[in-house]
Amino acid sequence: MKISLDCIPCFVRQAADAVKMSVFSDEDRKNLMHHVLQWLGDVDFNQTPPAAAQMIHRRLRELLPTDDPYRESKNRQNEMAAALIPAIRKHIASSSDPLTMAVRYAITGNIIDLGAKNNIGYGEIYEELQKAFMQPIFGDIEAFKKAVSEAQTILYLADNAGEIFFDRLLIEQLSGAKVTLAVRGAPVINDATISDALAAGIDDIAEIINNGSDAPGTILPDCKDEFRRCFDNADMIIAKGQGNFESLSDEPREIFFLFRTKCPVISLHSGFCVGTYVATNNFTATHSSSGDA
Amino acid sequence: MKISLDCIPCFVRQAADAVKMSVFSDEDRKNLMHHVLQWLGDVDFNQTPPAAAQMIHRRLRELLPTDDPYRESKNRQNEMAAALIPAIRKHIASSSDPLTMAVRYAITGNIIDLGAKNNIGYGEIYEELQKAFMQPIFGDIEAFKKAVSEAQTILYLADNAGEIFFDRLLIEQLSGAKVTLAVRGAPVINDATISDALAAGIDDIAEIINNGSDAPGTILPDCKDEFRRCFDNADMIIAKGQGNFESLSDEPREIFFLFRTKCPVISLHSGFCVGTYVATNNFTATHSSSGDA
Repeated sequence: MKISLDCIPCFVRQAADAVKMSVFSDEDRKNLMHHVLQWLGDVDFNQTPPAAAQMIHRRLRELLPTDDPYRESKNRQNEMAAALIPAIRKHIASSSDPLTMAVRYAITGNIIDLGAKNNIGYGEIYEELQKAFMQPIFGDIEAFKKAVSEAQTILYLADNAGEIFFDRLLIEQLSGAKVTLAVRGAPVINDATISDALAAGIDDIAEIINNGSDAPGTILPDCKDEFRRCFDNADMIIAKGQGNFESLSDEPREIFFLFRTKCPVISLHSGFCVGTYVATNNFTATHSSSGDA
Repeated sequence: MKISLDCIPCFVRQAADAVKMSVFSDEDRKNLMHHVLQWLGDVDFNQTPPAAAQMIHRRLRELLPTDDPYRESKNRQNEMAAALIPAIRKHIASSSDPLTMAVRYAITGNIIDLGAKNNIGYGEIYEELQKAFMQPIFGDIEAFKKAVSEAQTILYLADNAGEIFFDRLLIEQLSGAKVTLAVRGAPVINDATISDALAAGIDDIAEIINNGSDAPGTILPDCKDEFRRCFDNADMIIAKGQGNFESLSDEPREIFFLFRTKCPVISLHSGFCVGTYVATNNFTATHSSSGDA
C-alpha cells in the first residue's frame, strides 16, 4: 500500500519522538526537526509507509547520538510483557481453543507499537488484556487455523519489542510445525531485533533469524538472501503488525496477517474499523468475525 | 508559550487536512505537502504555536484553490451547534447557577476545534454534552464570576465556528455588562470570523468586531488598533480556546481563559490534565475544581 497524506504527520511525530528520546537540549532538538522536515520535503510519497520510514529513521540515526534511540523503551516494553506472560499462558491453556486464544493475545500485544503512537504504558496494556479474551477476531481465523494444521514449516515475521513475548505464546501453539521467527536486521522505531527475541526466550522453541533490513516492515528486495529463501520456501507465513501488512499486502504469495488496526489509513486499506483484531490473508480476505474460543 | 516539539506533527496534520479539503488529485496533494514540509523546515520554532500556524495557513491559502478551505466544515459545525442550542439554553435557565452552567457549556463547545483534531462529528459533540452538566471546572470559577459581577465592559475573544453558538449562551448570562465579541480578521483553520458570529445571532446581544489578524489565536502586535483599544480598555477579558491561551497567557494584564485541554502540550503549560474543563486566569492560576451548579 502507498503512503497516504495522513501518514505524513505520523512520520513527523515518529521523528519528534526519536529526537526527544536521545537529545536533551531544546535548541538541538528544534534544529534536528528543521533538518527532518527538509528531508521529508524530498521523500518520495509514492512508496509504502515502511519504505519512507526506513529512510527517515536511517537518516535520524546518522544525526542522533545513538543508533538505537528506542532501546530504553524496548527494554521497558520487554519487562512489562515478561511480567504479564505467565498468567496469559495459563489462560490460553485453559481455553477450549488455545490456538485462537493465543492469536487473540498475540494481536493484543500488537498495541505495543511506537510507530502508531508515541507512548504505551503498563496501564493501557493491562486494560486491553482484560478485554482481550472476548475480542472477536475479524477476517478469517478458520483459514488461519487450517493453514497452521497443514503447515510443516512456518515463517513468523515479528513486529515490536514487548509484543514479541505475546508472539512467543502463539508460537508455543504452533508446535506441529518447524517455526522460524524473523526479526528486523537493525534497530528501527521499537521493532524487535535479535536481542528482543532472545529476551522472550524464543530460541528455546524456534529458530531466530534477522531479515537483514532496517525497515519497520518487510521490504523483500531489501532483505538478505537467507531470509528470502525462508520466505519463498515456508509452507505458511504469519506476519505481525501494521508495518508488515503495509509492506507485504500486495505480494503474490499467501501471507496471514495478524494485527490490531491502529489508524484510519490501515483501516481504509484493510477494510477493518480502527481498533479491530484482524487475522486476514491477502488471498481470501473476508470481513467476518469469529466466535469466541 | 513557545512551540513544543509535539506541536510540529500537529502543524503538519493541519496542513494535510487543509490540503485534503480543497485539492482532490493525489499527485497535487502530495506535491503540496512536499512544499509545506520544506517551508516548515524554515519556520522559527521559538515563537508561539499560533504565530507559526498563522504563517503556515497563510502560505497554504496562497497555494490552495480557495482562501477558506474550512468554510464547508465551519458551516456544518454552525448547523450542528444551532440544532443543539435551544435545549441547552433551557438547561442553563433551569440551573441553580446559570452563569457557571453557561461557562461549562461554553467550554464543552471548545471541543469543536479542527486545530487540535482533524474531525469532529455530531455524535462526539452530543456525547460530550451528555456529560457536560456534571463536569468539574478546574482553575478558579469563583474569580471568574466575581470579575463578571464587577465588569461594566467585557471583551470576549471567540475561538471556533460552531463553538461560537455555545459562546452566545454564555454572553446571554453576562447581561450586566456591555459585551464586545471579537473574532478573527480573516479565515484560518475553523476559527470563527464575522459570518460565524452573525450566524449565531450574536449581533442581537453584543457588539461584534474582528481583530484584524489571521492568526489562530490573538497576537496583539498583529491586531488592528480598534481591537487593541478594546483590549486595553475592557474591564474584563474572556479568551476562549487553546489558541488564545497559547498566544496570551504571558500578557501583563489579567485575562480569563476558558478552554478544554486537548493536547499534552497545553496540559503541560497550563498544569491541567488533558480533557479538563478549565476556567483560569493568568494572574491567579490555581488548580482547584468548582462544585456543581
